[in-house]
Amino acid sequence: MTRPPVLLTPGPLTTSDETKRAMLVDWGSWDSDFRALTAEVRRHLLAIAGGTPEHAVVLMQGSGTFAVEAAIGTLVPQDGKLLVLVNGSYGRRMAKLTRQMGCALALLEVAEDQPITGRAVSQALATDAEITHVGVIHCETSTGILNPLTEIAAAVQAAGRALIVDAMSSFGALPLDISALPAVAVIASANKCLEGVPGLGFVVTETAALTAAAGNSPSLSLDLTDQWRYMEETGQFRFTPPTHVVAALAQALRDYADEGGRVARQRRYQRNCAVLVDGMAGLGFVPLLPAALQAPIIVTFHAPRDPAYRFDALYQALKRRGFIIYPGKTTEVESFRIGCIGHFDETVMREVVEAVAGAISELGLHDLGPAVAS
Amino acid sequence: MTRPPVLLTPGPLTTSDETKRAMLVDWGSWDSDFRALTAEVRRHLLAIAGGTPEHAVVLMQGSGTFAVEAAIGTLVPQDGKLLVLVNGSYGRRMAKLTRQMGCALALLEVAEDQPITGRAVSQALATDAEITHVGVIHCETSTGILNPLTEIAAAVQAAGRALIVDAMSSFGALPLDISALPAVAVIASANKCLEGVPGLGFVVTETAALTAAAGNSPSLSLDLTDQWRYMEETGQFRFTPPTHVVAALAQALRDYADEGGRVARQRRYQRNCAVLVDGMAGLGFVPLLPAALQAPIIVTFHAPRDPAYRFDALYQALKRRGFIIYPGKTTEVESFRIGCIGHFDETVMREVVEAVAGAISELGLHDLGPAVAS
Repeated sequence: MTRPPVLLTPGPLTTSDETKRAMLVDWGSWDSDFRALTAEVRRHLLAIAGGTPEHAVVLMQGSGTFAVEAAIGTLVPQDGKLLVLVNGSYGRRMAKLTRQMGCALALLEVAEDQPITGRAVSQALATDAEITHVGVIHCETSTGILNPLTEIAAAVQAAGRALIVDAMSSFGALPLDISALPAVAVIASANKCLEGVPGLGFVVTETAALTAAAGNSPSLSLDLTDQWRYMEETGQFRFTPPTHVVAALAQALRDYADEGGRVARQRRYQRNCAVLVDGMAGLGFVPLLPAALQAPIIVTFHAPRDPAYRFDALYQALKRRGFIIYPGKTTEVESFRIGCIGHFDETVMREVVEAVAGAISELGLHDLGPAVAS
Repeated sequence: MTRPPVLLTPGPLTTSDETKRAMLVDWGSWDSDFRALTAEVRRHLLAIAGGTPEHAVVLMQGSGTFAVEAAIGTLVPQDGKLLVLVNGSYGRRMAKLTRQMGCALALLEVAEDQPITGRAVSQALATDAEITHVGVIHCETSTGILNPLTEIAAAVQAAGRALIVDAMSSFGALPLDISALPAVAVIASANKCLEGVPGLGFVVTETAALTAAAGNSPSLSLDLTDQWRYMEETGQFRFTPPTHVVAALAQALRDYADEGGRVARQRRYQRNCAVLVDGMAGLGFVPLLPAALQAPIIVTFHAPRDPAYRFDALYQALKRRGFIIYPGKTTEVESFRIGCIGHFDETVMREVVEAVAGAISELGLHDLGPAVAS
């Protein structure tokens, strides 16, 4: 069997063989061994988030979006209002799910290649006293832009509101401390920088907020307080957990600690990102974002202006070379994305750049600059 | 490494090594290979449900309960009313999630050891013209009782209402044909009689109902129509799918077909159940249900009246012998449960009975009859 392609995507991503092999056992969800595994995962995640004994980790079945919806549906009271900060698809999705559950919503939207500033947040909060919570995407995976969490959190705190952070694609790699920010909740999933497999999200939050939120959720499945209370009382999930996914995450978190934790993970991703951006620049590709705004998670490149360029042809040419890239998700310019996260290092990234060189030669692409001025 | 325990539980259950090994690959969720896998799973599930070209399979991330909530939240309109038929925990849970999402609800409740009759359903529907939909649990896993789906469906159809079937623990083993019943929706999950791993539910439903239900769902994550439309248009999930869980289900469904499909699966489970019930009766244990009401899925036994009996001691003694059983979920009598489903046959069931004999001897239990008269 040939090596399966390396996933250069923002999750599901390439995981280690050890992590995948942890799924070769069927666990009884009620059994004490599985409860110990669940407790181990929750302890690790709490520590990575900078949680204190006043915080709890609530695991949630489903994709990361399910966890975002659970956090907002539970923590924002029925007479509350959420200001969502939008500079990409995931911000728009947070707004959409908030609206769909009937929760009052305000938007602060900026261009996709611009970060959201603390100043803009302060202004938005000053003009709307009904806003109780602010939701932000830490790293907007649709472009790879990093929003300045510290200054946003300071603005939210100064205005006496509560911050909910979607840290899906940054958690475990970029600095984030729930206590220091502070944020009332930080949301992420198993299958991004923690290098687990998909099927499980989680919310790190204040236990006081969970207690105060009892009865808020319009959904039983996504009721964060109910999930938390049951897990505290029994050590189990309320409803069937994805046992193999939990076991894979437990293994991935052990490997994470062995690698050296967050700092080592960030350093590896930064090297992946630097090798990628430099190598692609050498070929003539231009990233959407300036270096200062670029998180080392996923890089958006302008699609080449060469009239022969087709995303699908590039995708297939790279897949034949063992690499899966990701389509663009920008609405204003044509683009494609290459992820820096997953179980691989800069050696693989050099192979990626070589594969891109081979692909553009095969496809006869010459003019690789952006189709529109950046 | 010793053999991991066999799970005698209603899911997560024991899966084949082939099914687990299907999780040793990381799939790109956007890639055509994964889309082909997703399409294969949907085709198989549609055929097993007796679906026609007028039906669709909508896969849903999360546990089976998430799929139940998605079906009710999407298919029952905001001015609709759901009659839930209750004779156990899963019926109560369906009622609870319906109430929590603010949907109008009526209950028809009978004792846990009694099936719900078509006659009772007809009477309930005759007295409440507001009821638009009826929800039923096919096999109530909390006791193992089988509700008579055909006569219930006939009563619902005669009254001009729509039937939603939670077939979680029966789908793929017991006869069920969505077109013949008819039901507007049949809900199940990957990790019961199909012998996949947990993390994925699905709803088989009429495409006309999905179209009519656009805009109903109070939840974006659990919006069945939105999930269906996106999957039809792109072949992908809207939000990150549990790729490894989908791959495991694809393998499990191939093995299911190879075994001989539903009839063969039912026959194996029936043999498992018969060997279990006979063997346990030989030891002096009494099942909660008479044979006529007992589905070959999970068997509830009365806890022995011997004063030395403790469930946890029996559980641990059986675990040491390589078997994981399940606690009771009955509210009226003390009980424990042993599942008949999963990747094993009657040979294993004989070992289970031997293990129980060894355990009661070790624990010094003598008086194994029911604590209360059955």
